[in-house]
Amino acid sequence: MDTGNTAWLLTSSALVALMIPGLALFYGGMVSSKRILNMMMMCFGGASLVAVLWVIFGYSATFGDSLGSLGLLGDPLEFFGLETILADDPDAALPLALFIVFQLLFAGVTTALVAGAAAGRMKFGAWLLFAGIWAALVYFPVAHWVFAFDGDSVVGGWIANDLGAIDFAGGTAVHMNAGVAALALAIVLGRSKGWGGPLKPHNRPLVLVGAGLLWVGWYGFNAGSALSAGNAASVVFLNTTVAACAGLLGWALVDRLRHGSVTSLGAASGLISALVAITPACGAVSPMGAIAIGAIAGIVCCLAVEWKFTLGYDDSLDVVGVHMVGGLVGTLLIGFFATDAAPNGRNGLFYGGGIELLGIQALAAGAVLLYSFVVTWLIAKVLDLTIGLRIPEKDEVDGIDRHAHAEDAYDDHADSSTAADLVSAP
Amino acid sequence: MDTGNTAWLLTSSALVALMIPGLALFYGGMVSSKRILNMMMMCFGGASLVAVLWVIFGYSATFGDSLGSLGLLGDPLEFFGLETILADDPDAALPLALFIVFQLLFAGVTTALVAGAAAGRMKFGAWLLFAGIWAALVYFPVAHWVFAFDGDSVVGGWIANDLGAIDFAGGTAVHMNAGVAALALAIVLGRSKGWGGPLKPHNRPLVLVGAGLLWVGWYGFNAGSALSAGNAASVVFLNTTVAACAGLLGWALVDRLRHGSVTSLGAASGLISALVAITPACGAVSPMGAIAIGAIAGIVCCLAVEWKFTLGYDDSLDVVGVHMVGGLVGTLLIGFFATDAAPNGRNGLFYGGGIELLGIQALAAGAVLLYSFVVTWLIAKVLDLTIGLRIPEKDEVDGIDRHAHAEDAYDDHADSSTAADLVSAP
Amino acid sequence: MDTGNTAWLLTSSALVALMIPGLALFYGGMVSSKRILNMMMMCFGGASLVAVLWVIFGYSATFGDSLGSLGLLGDPLEFFGLETILADDPDAALPLALFIVFQLLFAGVTTALVAGAAAGRMKFGAWLLFAGIWAALVYFPVAHWVFAFDGDSVVGGWIANDLGAIDFAGGTAVHMNAGVAALALAIVLGRSKGWGGPLKPHNRPLVLVGAGLLWVGWYGFNAGSALSAGNAASVVFLNTTVAACAGLLGWALVDRLRHGSVTSLGAASGLISALVAITPACGAVSPMGAIAIGAIAGIVCCLAVEWKFTLGYDDSLDVVGVHMVGGLVGTLLIGFFATDAAPNGRNGLFYGGGIELLGIQALAAGAVLLYSFVVTWLIAKVLDLTIGLRIPEKDEVDGIDRHAHAEDAYDDHADSSTAADLVSAP
Repeated sequence: MDTGNTAWLLTSSALVALMIPGLALFYGGMVSSKRILNMMMMCFGGASLVAVLWVIFGYSATFGDSLGSLGLLGDPLEFFGLETILADDPDAALPLALFIVFQLLFAGVTTALVAGAAAGRMKFGAWLLFAGIWAALVYFPVAHWVFAFDGDSVVGGWIANDLGAIDFAGGTAVHMNAGVAALALAIVLGRSKGWGGPLKPHNRPLVLVGAGLLWVGWYGFNAGSALSAGNAASVVFLNTTVAACAGLLGWALVDRLRHGSVTSLGAASGLISALVAITPACGAVSPMGAIAIGAIAGIVCCLAVEWKFTLGYDDSLDVVGVHMVGGLVGTLLIGFFATDAAPNGRNGLFYGGGIELLGIQALAAGAVLLYSFVVTWLIAKVLDLTIGLRIPEKDEVDGIDRHAHAEDAYDDHADSSTAADLVSAP
Repeated sequence: MDTGNTAWLLTSSALVALMIPGLALFYGGMVSSKRILNMMMMCFGGASLVAVLWVIFGYSATFGDSLGSLGLLGDPLEFFGLETILADDPDAALPLALFIVFQLLFAGVTTALVAGAAAGRMKFGAWLLFAGIWAALVYFPVAHWVFAFDGDSVVGGWIANDLGAIDFAGGTAVHMNAGVAALALAIVLGRSKGWGGPLKPHNRPLVLVGAGLLWVGWYGFNAGSALSAGNAASVVFLNTTVAACAGLLGWALVDRLRHGSVTSLGAASGLISALVAITPACGAVSPMGAIAIGAIAGIVCCLAVEWKFTLGYDDSLDVVGVHMVGGLVGTLLIGFFATDAAPNGRNGLFYGGGIELLGIQALAAGAVLLYSFVVTWLIAKVLDLTIGLRIPEKDEVDGIDRHAHAEDAYDDHADSSTAADLVSAP
Repeated sequence: MDTGNTAWLLTSSALVALMIPGLALFYGGMVSSKRILNMMMMCFGGASLVAVLWVIFGYSATFGDSLGSLGLLGDPLEFFGLETILADDPDAALPLALFIVFQLLFAGVTTALVAGAAAGRMKFGAWLLFAGIWAALVYFPVAHWVFAFDGDSVVGGWIANDLGAIDFAGGTAVHMNAGVAALALAIVLGRSKGWGGPLKPHNRPLVLVGAGLLWVGWYGFNAGSALSAGNAASVVFLNTTVAACAGLLGWALVDRLRHGSVTSLGAASGLISALVAITPACGAVSPMGAIAIGAIAGIVCCLAVEWKFTLGYDDSLDVVGVHMVGGLVGTLLIGFFATDAAPNGRNGLFYGGGIELLGIQALAAGAVLLYSFVVTWLIAKVLDLTIGLRIPEKDEVDGIDRHAHAEDAYDDHADSSTAADLVSAP
């Protein structure tokens, strides 16, 4: 066992954990001041629940031996409860517990991403229930498809092994999966009251700092997925950085050309869009390829976030436009920009690799989009028909924080010079 | 010397440093907008002072050869001024300077934790003086007891070596120590004006993001305490994660059952309570054990934070209820949940280990509680009788920031469209 | 290739990336609420542009073989577009892509630092253009002088090799460079409307938390510059920590003596001043030397930030007083406090090393100050005379955010209980 590789995966896991407060800020700043707590709580609460499920059966369903060797789902009982994973195996490349927690955090972050589509109008209990069921029925299987590689005596997922698509850190399993699930959830939930105008974030600096923390955390996501501290992680780190920067500039350029000014919300969204797009591609392309993918993602997502107004779904915080579309852009562009000089060692169209890789990528993307949309829609619909997903209209208009969490986010910014803020109401 | 282990301890040290701004946000968001700067300054200022003392004699008093081989205090002169620790020793497991700074940050964070009991009413100079004396007379000795293991020719502390209690990363030396010191300080300081009602945090999103940063930083605290990048750090990392998530859910459940809704303040407090409780236990239990400890800590601490209203001490930000009680919960539950499959290699009651371990844990906890409470009370009392601890009542009611720091935290959120905010008062 | 060293440089790179949101908060909190978005966007946007330039020719101009072996500028075409850097070279000490991205982030952060001098009054497009040209004409050459060490068949920069000055992590190339460039830009830009009074930050907690994140990120900057995970990085880490803490205390002391209270803004500035000063010196001194340098920097910079009122330049956020002066303090104090027991292995005046080192340090500092000031002034002047640097006076008084970015930072903190915040203006 190599301590350097272990050190980097420990660090990467901590960085992925940083994405949870980062996402909570990014999403929380985008909603109104009466909805921020709920948004943050959806991130923290959803991720927490999924973490517990991961210990019980999630890791096993994702990375256990594939049931019937079909490549569709791991055996949920193989590592049930994780009671057998504590021993130090000196022959293993990495400590098993470390791989488990790294992937646990992927599951938590992915689930939290979906919350952005439900801002301000979903019962908190229903969200938690949805999050748990979604992880079990959608994330665990799809992550098995994409992340579970065949081992010596273990059969993994069909996308990773049979199809052989390139998805370094989760363009399909994480971002397209969360993005299309957000679409399904938004459709079942229905639109917010008063829907139709541009987003009015109550605190744009929080959005920017959230994007910044997500950026930093993303290094764990992408470069950690190399599972070693070597050249592959390094190329991935460089590609992730320059893609993110190009994405900010790409979105900013479209902003400037269309509206005459570069918004901070656009810059933050461009950064995140590019990080999404480079996630599957970070090990497959050169730095110039990463810049191209980042810039294209910034431009395309900038246009895609307006689809919701045309099509009429209320994807409140643009999970669809940023994560589904960004993930698709990155997954497909691998088919063009992949170079065999990069860690993945495959050539795309622009490097003489033919059309085949593009076809493989499209198939992987299509399968994840289809499965995730259908199953998520069914989960949401069943929950809506049974326990109900929406909060009462009055509470929604009034702001969900006070009703779902019995709290206001902010207090006494303008308190007079008294001790009033230290005493309770009579 | 292994570069992988060194890399992980360097990273862990950076993560522990992140706990200082994390704590400043966590505490700062919980007070009113006229008291946040003081709260943040207590964290940064206290930690800074302790860092300087650590260089001068603190490291030596904690990790120097035990005076009289008693296991009570290290020789404060052995490494006085740290002038002799720069050389590269190829035979050492880790660079000495790195262990020194890792432990320095523990001392700084622990001292800063105490500040939560004194929110809004303590002279800033008196706080700094208290912090320095407290580190010298309480933290350095107790850390010697718990963290200083015997070496080839060095005698360490009595709890680590003679008693043989399990405290992986500081349930006793850090959290119970800070928590009971907070109790003593709160008693001597007396209650805030207008005390008696529920806390009214001015900015709950800051509390949540502070909790999130503390969570990430905690990985350095716990998994860094393995002092190597291997299976132990990995198991600790996994246990820390799932305990934290279970703590959030545990507290949330009690919130829901008792008050009908899940508050963000409860979620943040549950997360931190569980992180506290898993700190001593993170190397001793399985992931399911960690979930149990985290959930129990969330539930118990949720009840314990109300003791202050019954007993009448003003532990403003619940340092007692979260750190003292959470630390005690974790320290004692090791006696039940410890499994010899985990890195510490000991069995508790539930794994057939008998009652002995529980007794050892209780003794360690009791000794730290007693020593820290008595000495802290004496320090606070002497300072109160000499220089005085409290600010004038008028300043307290008015908000301490303006009086202790000549500043307001927030300005011009509502400024009119003028350049007024760029010019000085006449 | 050593995985432990690689793991630490991967981590360090992530930490340096954290400095960008950290700086955005630090600067953003210091301006008014109508100027924060612009300040944050200058940080993110400037760094992003420089990242793209770094891939195209910046890395090559900085670390390519010195043109004409003069030590003044690397060959910008040697690594043009970074298409040739992907391969895994098992003989290299570190992956080339990793060194490239670590240094990319240095370039990005350094450029962002300059923005503090231009708060609230510079066209955003002009800033981006300035940032790109400044990186090309000032940062890349100066970083070549200081950071490009001679290799087997590669000629590096004159300060690193011919002069042999000590600058561990960029006291000259980063901080004095950015600081004096800020001075030149501030002079060309002219003063803000209504200039002359003390800074009135709109959100001091953001300044403190920004300083805290910068502190954590700085570990990547300084201890990452060891390029290995061993004793040197560890000593640097310790020195960085204690200098920062001493700087906070030093500035606080001056604050207390001169104005009677310790401000949070002073504490944050003292922390950053000391981090700046220890940046060149972190590998050259003992922990007590680091405390001395940190404290001196805190005291000197506390006095130096007032020069702008005497001399009349509007260095809005004290980039000159903190980074230029702090960098100079650290660079020169190496001549006094350097000890050959530290990683750099040289003795300064106080350790019997004679005056020579001080002379070398002064020469390096002088060269960077002169070159950077002159070239920056010329860039700014040419841009001012052609495209113009300043925004219209009306927009400046009104707050730049709305005009440059078509956004307000904050919204609806006081919204009434309606859905108004979810609907667009008619």
